[in-house]
Amino acid sequence: EQLPDELRSRVLQAIEHDDKVLVEDILAWPEDSAGGIMQPIAFRLNEKLTCRDAITTLHEKQDDLESIFYLYVENDADQLVGVTSLRALLTNPPSTVLQDIMATDVITASPVDDQEIVARLVSRYDLLAIPVVDENRHMLGIVTIDDVVDVIQEEALEDMMLMAGVGQEPDPSVGGVVGVARQRLTWLLVTLVGGIGMAELIGVFENALAQKAVLAGFIPVMLGMGGNVGIQAATVAVRNIAVGHDQNTSIPSMLYREARIGLILGFAFALTLGGYALVRWYSEPLIALSIAGAIISTVCTAAILGAVVPLTLNRLKVDPAIATGPFVTTGIDLLAILIYFSTAKIILDL
Amino acid sequence: EQLPDELRSRVLQAIEHDDKVLVEDILAWPEDSAGGIMQPIAFRLNEKLTCRDAITTLHEKQDDLESIFYLYVENDADQLVGVTSLRALLTNPPSTVLQDIMATDVITASPVDDQEIVARLVSRYDLLAIPVVDENRHMLGIVTIDDVVDVIQEEALEDMMLMAGVGQEPDPSVGGVVGVARQRLTWLLVTLVGGIGMAELIGVFENALAQKAVLAGFIPVMLGMGGNVGIQAATVAVRNIAVGHDQNTSIPSMLYREARIGLILGFAFALTLGGYALVRWYSEPLIALSIAGAIISTVCTAAILGAVVPLTLNRLKVDPAIATGPFVTTGIDLLAILIYFSTAKIILDL
Repeated sequence: EQLPDELRSRVLQAIEHDDKVLVEDILAWPEDSAGGIMQPIAFRLNEKLTCRDAITTLHEKQDDLESIFYLYVENDADQLVGVTSLRALLTNPPSTVLQDIMATDVITASPVDDQEIVARLVSRYDLLAIPVVDENRHMLGIVTIDDVVDVIQEEALEDMMLMAGVGQEPDPSVGGVVGVARQRLTWLLVTLVGGIGMAELIGVFENALAQKAVLAGFIPVMLGMGGNVGIQAATVAVRNIAVGHDQNTSIPSMLYREARIGLILGFAFALTLGGYALVRWYSEPLIALSIAGAIISTVCTAAILGAVVPLTLNRLKVDPAIATGPFVTTGIDLLAILIYFSTAKIILDL
Repeated sequence: EQLPDELRSRVLQAIEHDDKVLVEDILAWPEDSAGGIMQPIAFRLNEKLTCRDAITTLHEKQDDLESIFYLYVENDADQLVGVTSLRALLTNPPSTVLQDIMATDVITASPVDDQEIVARLVSRYDLLAIPVVDENRHMLGIVTIDDVVDVIQEEALEDMMLMAGVGQEPDPSVGGVVGVARQRLTWLLVTLVGGIGMAELIGVFENALAQKAVLAGFIPVMLGMGGNVGIQAATVAVRNIAVGHDQNTSIPSMLYREARIGLILGFAFALTLGGYALVRWYSEPLIALSIAGAIISTVCTAAILGAVVPLTLNRLKVDPAIATGPFVTTGIDLLAILIYFSTAKIILDL
């Protein structure tokens, strides 16, 4: 419901300003590309103008300009060759030619660049606007920093939704409960299938369970601790990738770090849970030992897997935000059950 | 390791510019407040200056100004009374007095405002900078949009880290594995205590388990589906609060919506899981019925709780991002176990 309005205003803008960019061109770019979010208006000056002439041109064109962030400078072939500012026009002698005061290292975006890339450029170089140019350096428009702010907020929310498997869920006031349920279902089905797999896996250990029914009571804590430690490791890895630490930190060193954290956490849980089991079933100390051993192995495995998956996804150019998704958590769950019952079978000799 | 540098540069800036803001004042504001992120430099002009005089002043002060976003206008008592732009100075007759061309509805921030509030103001009004004023409308500095971009990115990452219980985890290259483990532990202990509670709760149903060992196999899927549906509902609620839908949507209508989604999902899972159980244990159709009934109740409860917690936290002025934290998920887990075994006991007559 927002798009038509936005499109309409962009089209109107383009028509009103009688710009050389064709309306069809603007509408042709994907919605989340630089071309899709750019404004097809930008003030351009020929590089041979003097500061005095440039100011005169500004006076004449004043209605054309909603906001002048930068003054873009073009050569006779209408190619972007530099950038300058209102302040430079004012503070240099009026006869100075733009060529002599402009900065020539202009950072530009291509119209097909993803809006996230544009946001990163604007944010990294602290720009107020970035010009969008085609392959011949003809300016198509500018993306201003206020649009970039919207993009950053949108992308952060998108990542959060992606991590919880709720995708692009629409505005709640719109309704459509069945459609929403169908969308959430896609993600949950993996967990459901994993759950059936776990029922089968636990069935394999039915004899062990029949001998020691108490083992069933620790299934939730094994799954819970494994899952949470894995999600923590994955979130830290996703954060490190997002803020660019991944470049400095090699995968082996990240894994070594997470393995050590997992070991410390695992020992802490083993003491607590094992201590509890020892008090509760003091006549059978092997139960406590078995639970302690299982929780250490599970937590270490989860910490390493949690870190390795987002790092691998990132190398494969897949959005690492999906790493805390159902495939990984279900995988960790299955491993936790396997480790738990195998440890119990060995230690309790079932 | 970043703070001292930043502080030093701010102090140097303040000293170099010999500004009326005292260095001690700048350092006194909390790091994540408007006062903490503002630049204590801002170009100010008296309201009685003409455009010509204003341009002359600009020429004289040119080295003082890193970037001129807006020109702030003050009265004789040094109070902020309006704002204008370089462009307005250029496009109005040189003898025009600033008073006559300035906009007087200046949006300002207080130095104690949280940086998130400042970011929201800048983003909502598409500002390039926001002046920070004290209670007497004396300007203390400006927060520019490039700093706001950093704040937005930082806050989004913070929310993500908060949701996974990893808090303000430092740069991995710094090391300190024990400190990190201790920080993550705080959050995990809730899950651990919840896990012991679950072991006790399952112990209560030990007789039922002894009679039908197959029941243990479905513990993971009950916990998994309940947890995931709850997290999805909570994430959507957190998103809706973040984008401001909460104002339009009442709590009862959100809950009604989530309850219906939960019901649809619950029926879908009941069909799948129940169907599987019916095929697998065809001689005991009541097992399938009991599992189907339990999953519907669990999923509905999880969907409603998942939505109600962030909405309630938001009303209580607590960051709703913690809603997917261990207290809520552990609560849903305990409820899931209780619902599961109670349903089984009733339907299977154990």
